Amino acid sequence: MVSQLESAMDSLIKVFHTYSSKEGDKYKLSKAEMKSLLQGELSDFLAASKDPLVVEKIINDLDQNRDGEVDFHEFVILVAALTVACNDFFVECMKN
Amino acid sequence: MVSQLESAMDSLIKVFHTYSSKEGDKYKLSKAEMKSLLQGELSDFLAASKDPLVVEKIINDLDQNRDGEVDFHEFVILVAALTVACNDFFVECMKN
Repeated sequence: MVSQLESAMDSLIKVFHTYSSKEGDKYKLSKAEMKSLLQGELSDFLAASKDPLVVEKIINDLDQNRDGEVDFHEFVILVAALTVACNDFFVECMKN
Repeated sequence: MVSQLESAMDSLIKVFHTYSSKEGDKYKLSKAEMKSLLQGELSDFLAASKDPLVVEKIINDLDQNRDGEVDFHEFVILVAALTVACNDFFVECMKN
């Protein structure tokens, strides 16, 4: 029996590889793959931003080793940061 | 329509608060709550370790600000590290 937490971790890995396997290095997201992932999986977050360059900026911020691609570790940092932000928002709402 | 990634992020928040709300500070995991979370959600990981003090060690490692509790940010760091380790294992299996 897979727990809710294990299922969530499994989803993070599956989502990444669904997009990373489309072209080039199967285990890294190219800029096009990352853009596709952001648009397919986080469209509500993108819609909340008024910045037309938001996708480009996220990719540049994530690509810590400057190889023009996003590996799984870099991807998880984005997800962790977004989830912490969502949790902070949720906790603020609960407290007020 | 919630995406698979959004659903996974939602699960991380829900799992944390399911356990953190049991006693004391509703938004932080006490040592007992963290132990309960690890045993309830990551029992396979714990079973793989032969160290009887593994839960205690994880909690001490996570508690970066040394307040004896684990906040959501500290929890997400654990999940991120475990997920990266799982992904590395998965990728190695795929390559071999």
